[in-house]
Amino acid sequence: MTADLVLCEKSEQVATLTLNSPASRNALSLQLLGALSANLRELAAQDDIRVVILQAEGPAFCAGHDLKELTAHRNDPDRGRAFFETTMRACSSVMQQIVSLPIPVIAAVDEMATAAGCQLVASCDLAVAGPHARFCTPGVDIGLFCSTPAVALSRNVAPKHAMEMLLTGVPIGAEAALRIGLVNRVEVEGARTGARTLAEEIARKSPQAIRFGKRAFYAQREKPLAEAYEMASAVMAENMLAEDAKEGIAAFLEKRAPHWPEK
Amino acid sequence: MTADLVLCEKSEQVATLTLNSPASRNALSLQLLGALSANLRELAAQDDIRVVILQAEGPAFCAGHDLKELTAHRNDPDRGRAFFETTMRACSSVMQQIVSLPIPVIAAVDEMATAAGCQLVASCDLAVAGPHARFCTPGVDIGLFCSTPAVALSRNVAPKHAMEMLLTGVPIGAEAALRIGLVNRVEVEGARTGARTLAEEIARKSPQAIRFGKRAFYAQREKPLAEAYEMASAVMAENMLAEDAKEGIAAFLEKRAPHWPEK
Amino acid sequence: MTADLVLCEKSEQVATLTLNSPASRNALSLQLLGALSANLRELAAQDDIRVVILQAEGPAFCAGHDLKELTAHRNDPDRGRAFFETTMRACSSVMQQIVSLPIPVIAAVDEMATAAGCQLVASCDLAVAGPHARFCTPGVDIGLFCSTPAVALSRNVAPKHAMEMLLTGVPIGAEAALRIGLVNRVEVEGARTGARTLAEEIARKSPQAIRFGKRAFYAQREKPLAEAYEMASAVMAENMLAEDAKEGIAAFLEKRAPHWPEK
Repeated sequence: MTADLVLCEKSEQVATLTLNSPASRNALSLQLLGALSANLRELAAQDDIRVVILQAEGPAFCAGHDLKELTAHRNDPDRGRAFFETTMRACSSVMQQIVSLPIPVIAAVDEMATAAGCQLVASCDLAVAGPHARFCTPGVDIGLFCSTPAVALSRNVAPKHAMEMLLTGVPIGAEAALRIGLVNRVEVEGARTGARTLAEEIARKSPQAIRFGKRAFYAQREKPLAEAYEMASAVMAENMLAEDAKEGIAAFLEKRAPHWPEK
Repeated sequence: MTADLVLCEKSEQVATLTLNSPASRNALSLQLLGALSANLRELAAQDDIRVVILQAEGPAFCAGHDLKELTAHRNDPDRGRAFFETTMRACSSVMQQIVSLPIPVIAAVDEMATAAGCQLVASCDLAVAGPHARFCTPGVDIGLFCSTPAVALSRNVAPKHAMEMLLTGVPIGAEAALRIGLVNRVEVEGARTGARTLAEEIARKSPQAIRFGKRAFYAQREKPLAEAYEMASAVMAENMLAEDAKEGIAAFLEKRAPHWPEK
Repeated sequence: MTADLVLCEKSEQVATLTLNSPASRNALSLQLLGALSANLRELAAQDDIRVVILQAEGPAFCAGHDLKELTAHRNDPDRGRAFFETTMRACSSVMQQIVSLPIPVIAAVDEMATAAGCQLVASCDLAVAGPHARFCTPGVDIGLFCSTPAVALSRNVAPKHAMEMLLTGVPIGAEAALRIGLVNRVEVEGARTGARTLAEEIARKSPQAIRFGKRAFYAQREKPLAEAYEMASAVMAENMLAEDAKEGIAAFLEKRAPHWPEK
């Protein structure tokens, strides 16, 4: 049952995770978060998967937290505190799982991505929007500021852009999202087409190099320049000694296509 | 007298602070900084105020530091050191007061914002420019690099954009400011109209949520991702237990307009 | 011989460093890195130089690391580890030398800047592109993720833009580089013309102020807001007491052109 909340399909080294709770507009209930987390954990361990696409079924990409579920727990003896804390921690943990996944994750957004749904998009490495995609962080309309979505949003776009979304709650369209850096591309034929093209392109690259690099990318961002360089230099030297670099550089110098060894 | 340097007008939960020293082009003398600081401190304590607009009277939004006042202190026994330090500290403190104010601050800029004047705009949560607004950090022309303005500027725009303004001193127009993320909107009818519209929109949102969120936004920006999420998750759980979230989420689920309790 | 790898020409307070290894597409061999470093060190000590332009001779701006040189060291007893570490450290050190140079550095890019070549551009304070300039970080194509270039790139452009370049390796053109903040200007007449104009403009500014400011700019970026302001305020007070500020502010108040004292 939980498995059905997130579908996982694999095709030619690309895994597609589909949020599959259209009736709830893919709201991030504790169960849906659990299913998403379990799928990500499983994919992290599969060496034949090189890229993940995150898309959604139904009229919304993701409506954010499950407000009905949260509200039901207001009747708990602690007025819901424990449940709220658990939910927020689970949600933040899934977002960080995407960041720490050794495989690139591409969001494919054709509909509205709201609050924690917008945060999901911001947390992915890349994002493709369809022409009707929209993005908003409207917590101010329901008395609950999008403070955790702001963590991901503010690491993607300029602060005044983030603050405008957070303080007004007004949705922005695909083109505006492109302009401020929240998505990489707007694909007229739909986000899934664009995400697939991008995924297949990345799937041909060295998976080993990407594992070294994705981790280093997010780690170095949090360090002062000198420490960032010290760390990244060490990663480069390790990466040089690994199989893919040996093969890839040799292939380049011999003017032939590289053949990445299966892991 | 000091009160006249900054006018404060309140209308429908929006406070408008007007820099009112047109003859000095609203230069940030110690007195004007004091007046601005006092007004901000007062507004922070007023629960009926939900948004602040910062605008200016006269031919310039703000000319930056008061160079005559600074120069006069070159005759002090210490060549002005103590006064310079006091001024820079006072100025930096006002900028941080804007950031830590629990209410959103919107800059409305119709004229030139220079040096610390440009920093004022960068320090606000949101900024609206009129079509003739301009922004510059020309300290290099007078031998005094805009090092403190750079603190706010570099947290708003990409480093090469910041460096170009800082190294050349050349003013950029409203459209360029929009493109690099220094302002949110260019309003053909003038910044005040645009800022007012934005302020009224935000004034309808949950003030309690905004208090939780504005503080969390700037606090989380300074932390590594994991710590940022830990902090923001805790804020979300607290926010869930507060009155506005209870009312706002209930209203949303009942498909009615929320009524924010008066504090 | 090493001297020829990087040419240094001085004209009217502007030094032009030209990467001059066209046959190797200005690949950053240990020797070329050494030559670049030596030139930067020398320029840092010359008080009559106010701006540095970094340009390149030949069909490429810079091809990144010297893959032949790196590969040759795979036959070392340690499989190249020591040499790789030395190279990466040397490269990261040159990049940081640009950042810590007390004089502004402007990249002038008319051709392809690849991997560490793209990093060079990102590491400069300003960058001008010619209409045919291109930028890429294609390490994923050779099994060696551009982890050190990512340090500079991710400090210049939004993370999704950086990640797209890093994960796909696809080159972006001058206009795209402008849009994402990697370069300041695209000059139809060529990057060298544009960089020269910019350099001459900056050479007229107070060199002392720029020394104070460039260092403060990069230092404050790495600090939380309160510490950044504390540091920058102290720098401003020191800057006020220095000769150029005295002259510059006096000139401004007396409505005359400033005359920067020779150091």
